[in-house]
Amino acid sequence: MSDLRHTILAIRPLDHRAMEKAQIRQNNLAKPQGSLGRLEKLSVKLSGIKGELPRLEHKAIITMVADHGVTAQGVSAHPSEITTQMVYALLEGGGAICMLARQVGAKLILVDMGVASDLIPNPKLISKKIAHGTCDISEGPAMTRDEAERSIEAGIDIIEAECSRGLDIVGTGDMGIGNTTPSSAICSSITGQPVIEITGMGAGLDKEGVAHKVEIIERALETNKPDPKDPIDVLAKVGGFEIGGLAGVILGAAANRVPIVIDGFVSGAAALIAVGLAPRTREYIIASHISAEPGHTAIIDHLRMEPLLDLGMRLGEGTGAALGIFLAEAASRTLTGIWTFDEMLKIEG
Amino acid sequence: MSDLRHTILAIRPLDHRAMEKAQIRQNNLAKPQGSLGRLEKLSVKLSGIKGELPRLEHKAIITMVADHGVTAQGVSAHPSEITTQMVYALLEGGGAICMLARQVGAKLILVDMGVASDLIPNPKLISKKIAHGTCDISEGPAMTRDEAERSIEAGIDIIEAECSRGLDIVGTGDMGIGNTTPSSAICSSITGQPVIEITGMGAGLDKEGVAHKVEIIERALETNKPDPKDPIDVLAKVGGFEIGGLAGVILGAAANRVPIVIDGFVSGAAALIAVGLAPRTREYIIASHISAEPGHTAIIDHLRMEPLLDLGMRLGEGTGAALGIFLAEAASRTLTGIWTFDEMLKIEG
Repeated sequence: MSDLRHTILAIRPLDHRAMEKAQIRQNNLAKPQGSLGRLEKLSVKLSGIKGELPRLEHKAIITMVADHGVTAQGVSAHPSEITTQMVYALLEGGGAICMLARQVGAKLILVDMGVASDLIPNPKLISKKIAHGTCDISEGPAMTRDEAERSIEAGIDIIEAECSRGLDIVGTGDMGIGNTTPSSAICSSITGQPVIEITGMGAGLDKEGVAHKVEIIERALETNKPDPKDPIDVLAKVGGFEIGGLAGVILGAAANRVPIVIDGFVSGAAALIAVGLAPRTREYIIASHISAEPGHTAIIDHLRMEPLLDLGMRLGEGTGAALGIFLAEAASRTLTGIWTFDEMLKIEG
Repeated sequence: MSDLRHTILAIRPLDHRAMEKAQIRQNNLAKPQGSLGRLEKLSVKLSGIKGELPRLEHKAIITMVADHGVTAQGVSAHPSEITTQMVYALLEGGGAICMLARQVGAKLILVDMGVASDLIPNPKLISKKIAHGTCDISEGPAMTRDEAERSIEAGIDIIEAECSRGLDIVGTGDMGIGNTTPSSAICSSITGQPVIEITGMGAGLDKEGVAHKVEIIERALETNKPDPKDPIDVLAKVGGFEIGGLAGVILGAAANRVPIVIDGFVSGAAALIAVGLAPRTREYIIASHISAEPGHTAIIDHLRMEPLLDLGMRLGEGTGAALGIFLAEAASRTLTGIWTFDEMLKIEG
């Protein structure tokens, strides 16, 4: 049995007794009931995921990187080479996610899932390279079905290794010039929304650029005819290696009862694949923010999620996930740390 | 010249050159322009407040506590004695704000502005007690005009002392059974909104309780006729000591070019007083979240602000402000820490 099937079978329902216990504790804390709003609901969900009052000590953000053959069609405002440069910048601590991961006390795990260049080995970079970038989806499938499965299993490997070292919460992040194009293709295929509704500027296309990108995505869907009922087929035909890897991270985290804070559009596309493969995974996911990229709304609606933040962000790398991890930790710390009314009335000043 | 007038005169406009420099840096960072959304705008505002690229090392949350004579009219779901109990719980680290202040690395400063009981002295509690609670505003003024001015000046003293020790950002918080009643009265008086529109459940009133609270607030406004053009008159007639103290904190922080992250409804009422006294103060304020208390929307609209978070919170204590300080720090860290494209292209992998 493959890692993937084994992982899917290991995903259990949330622990409703732990959730009840958490809700009772919330109701007895020395504050008006419900006054922490969505943080209270989040604390109950975290309890259901972990099966106990959640303590979020060990935090990680997994940022997966890959290149996309479809950039040959001019779907991005930046050349493909920027992906490689950004990996080196991230390794040296110069990227946005480096700042935010440090701020929230999360370990940043960088994974090469399929960058086009041969990256210089670095102890801070995990190589799970499936290939040197995907093929151009406007002309044929992004990857073989075997590569799609291997990309998901690579993500499972990464999260399993991290869980064995001790992990309480994980955030997902992505980097890869052109990767909003496969994300839009996945989004349209699985949610059924028209490409034109769910395609945006990515890293900074102008109006004409977006119109061209829509054409390319429509051509990719026509050429490949991905089967929305078969998430691995969708990933293979119009996906990306970092998207497959992140789907594996999400599935593997759910199997290990680790809450997953997803970032924006690209992580959302990975969540569509993961939830398509194992619907229960949905309960383990926390949507950090709603991205400014229009397709993200379709994904969030499809997954019936309520993002915590709406700050107009659309950077990727896991930046929104880092902010979401902070809020999850706030939910956990208040649930476990605030005194109950009984405790409060016991003290004398 | 009083501390108050001196402070008001010391509030200068934002530094627009520093804001331009910050915007230019944002545009050159190794990420798509604008992709950090509201964090980018916030980083530019912080630069204008501080007059340089902001580094938020020294953080504090000032939580002010007082009692309210109007609780005799049954306007709160809890008895007044809970205020005293909560002070002791906060001093022992058992309140919600204790968890969140620690999480964001902010010093928590507790101030007795006018608790009804004589609190046992504690090195962690600053006493600026103006009186043992306000008078019942449904029967007459909350306090004398002199007490109103002294409460504001007490807040200025607190923030001046903190600034002299080194302070980069401050959050405001409140605790005081019954204090949404004076806040609604201030809100109605200054924004002109009908009492019924801006009065909510506070710590947990039912529908009848809210209707009764509306009546009491309407009676307070009829009895006292506060002059909305004279914020000190509004504070004296229908305010509270912690509200006056927080108005002082806001004014004093602005005078010292320290950004102020305001919490919810009660801090918002304090901001109405502060901005009424010195309109420039508005630019120094960051609205952390929109409270579930309905009057908060009227305050936010009146002050033309855009809260960062909408999590259905209504706890007070500075809990929303703590989350806002985290986001301000994220804005500052990304502005100052992300590499520019030039820096990125210089490195070889």
